[in-house]
Amino acid sequence: MNDDNGLNLNCPIPISDYPRVLLAHGGGGKLMHQLIDKIFAAAFKNPLLETRHDGAVLETVPGKIAFTTDSYVVHPLFFPGGDIGSLAVNGTVNDLAMCGARPLYLSAGFIIEEGFLMESLWRVAQSMQKAADTAGVSIVTGDTKVVDRGHGHGVFINTAGVGIIEHDLIINPKEVKVGDAIIINGDIGRHGIAIMAKREGLEFETEIESDCASLAGSVRELIKADIEIHCLRDLTRGGLATTLVEIAESSGRQIWLDEKTIPVREDVRGACEILGFEPGYVANEGRFAAFIAEKDTEKAVEILRARCNWPEAVVIGRVTEENSAEVIMKSVIGAERVLDMLSGEQLPRIC
Amino acid sequence: MNDDNGLNLNCPIPISDYPRVLLAHGGGGKLMHQLIDKIFAAAFKNPLLETRHDGAVLETVPGKIAFTTDSYVVHPLFFPGGDIGSLAVNGTVNDLAMCGARPLYLSAGFIIEEGFLMESLWRVAQSMQKAADTAGVSIVTGDTKVVDRGHGHGVFINTAGVGIIEHDLIINPKEVKVGDAIIINGDIGRHGIAIMAKREGLEFETEIESDCASLAGSVRELIKADIEIHCLRDLTRGGLATTLVEIAESSGRQIWLDEKTIPVREDVRGACEILGFEPGYVANEGRFAAFIAEKDTEKAVEILRARCNWPEAVVIGRVTEENSAEVIMKSVIGAERVLDMLSGEQLPRIC
Repeated sequence: MNDDNGLNLNCPIPISDYPRVLLAHGGGGKLMHQLIDKIFAAAFKNPLLETRHDGAVLETVPGKIAFTTDSYVVHPLFFPGGDIGSLAVNGTVNDLAMCGARPLYLSAGFIIEEGFLMESLWRVAQSMQKAADTAGVSIVTGDTKVVDRGHGHGVFINTAGVGIIEHDLIINPKEVKVGDAIIINGDIGRHGIAIMAKREGLEFETEIESDCASLAGSVRELIKADIEIHCLRDLTRGGLATTLVEIAESSGRQIWLDEKTIPVREDVRGACEILGFEPGYVANEGRFAAFIAEKDTEKAVEILRARCNWPEAVVIGRVTEENSAEVIMKSVIGAERVLDMLSGEQLPRIC
Repeated sequence: MNDDNGLNLNCPIPISDYPRVLLAHGGGGKLMHQLIDKIFAAAFKNPLLETRHDGAVLETVPGKIAFTTDSYVVHPLFFPGGDIGSLAVNGTVNDLAMCGARPLYLSAGFIIEEGFLMESLWRVAQSMQKAADTAGVSIVTGDTKVVDRGHGHGVFINTAGVGIIEHDLIINPKEVKVGDAIIINGDIGRHGIAIMAKREGLEFETEIESDCASLAGSVRELIKADIEIHCLRDLTRGGLATTLVEIAESSGRQIWLDEKTIPVREDVRGACEILGFEPGYVANEGRFAAFIAEKDTEKAVEILRARCNWPEAVVIGRVTEENSAEVIMKSVIGAERVLDMLSGEQLPRIC
């Protein structure tokens, strides 16, 4: 029996045997082997994982690889548009893509709280595999720990990723150049608001779904088309504003933004007003900013819209000739202001 | 001011400002940037980390790489002979070494509980760097999350590792051959007992220290000397017995052990008797079993003793001609019995 997302609802460890994860499932003995076999190996089936060694042995090409990691502690674990599993795959895939790499291999480390529902773990594992299939990556090695009840929160997932770099571009904040266009691939703020709404039981007229998605294909299309990319960054914790401030600071450049060009869905804008957030500081999980050489601007927007299914891809600003290491935004009413990083905690545990 | 282990006791984030980690330290804003700069970047200083990108870009050689991950949830965080930091580095370094790889790069993902002492985090970070220096690896990318008080346990650390394979050996349980000698590098059971003693406040005549150590150098020496290695495995969760049962099951071979040859320190044996454990099932963090072609047995033991500083390295058994996929141990009193995997949870959260 499958659910709406095509996930198999029949947990391979019978609920009647082990309805919940026990400390012993992390103890290195028989129960851990059963958990790994029936849940993780069943969901992530691939030849590399099947060697069951302490690690995976991978063939690489000469040249450069990218290596990254993120832990995922999002709460609630399941939310409109995704869950901790799809987030854990897409988040790390996107970090690799932002290095200009083609994501290939992921590791998965689970820290499970004693008492976590076995069915939920199975659902998360399948969701990871579905996201991995979409992004074209394999989960090749992993680890399972179980912590005492009250010392975790359902499940935390760490994924690390390895990707290969198949071009000569250097993609890095230091490469940002005067005149670069700043392009984003769609509307901002949905992931953070989706989590917040679910967590706080808020209801809006329409359901706000997370934008959680892989960006690997989009980056690959831009590179394939020989677009001169200078910098890529996904708009996660801290949102668009914090990300751009970071890049302005690392590059020493001044970034100029036009607020009215930044797509924000009406329901997201409304929710932000009610909750007292600015959409520019809310986390996204399938949005990125690309710093593109002036000459390639239109072509890059066209590729994102036509080939990558981002109809709202748009230029939101540019890199000026000033070297002030700051982000200046022209507001919808025409006033200019300097943007700051998010200070403190706006939305905890959104990723 | 340095402590006995040469660690700098002056936390770079003044205790007067932030004595404890706040949720905001994981929020993606200013405080998170300060935490990363002052604690992690300061401890793990290296050029790759300094690019501050979403991931690290690494040069590799053509051929094979190994990729592995482990999460560390050990409790207590600090114990005789190590702490969660040294464990998080050595554990993953050792998993790479067990693939026959030369460990090069680590990622570090921190899941910190709100309220964790900033000084403890600094101590853990320094301890990681010290272990990384010893093992010859760099921590090149990372991630920081903070979870609400009561939903974590001080700090959990995930490390993933990348290493290169510079030889043509295939090191894998499937390569285990009839006649192979099984060599271990020293006495077993100390890590698990050290954790347990500290956790339960047990006092023995002598302090039992964890055996936590890097095995990368030892594997490199064996490979350099052209020892025909068939399989390597570190003796972590589940201990020596569970590890050998796993290898017997994957290879289909029968493993024969002579209990009297297995080194166990007297104080560890005593503690095991009091606590009702068998030393063969207690976790180690710096011990491994090597399956070595019969012809190279003596040479391998000699290398481990003379070049790798493992004076107690010893042959504890061999692979027989039977294909029973089981481990048979001749006990000190001469009786033979079939060893089973650890069933259930013996010592939770020892790694």
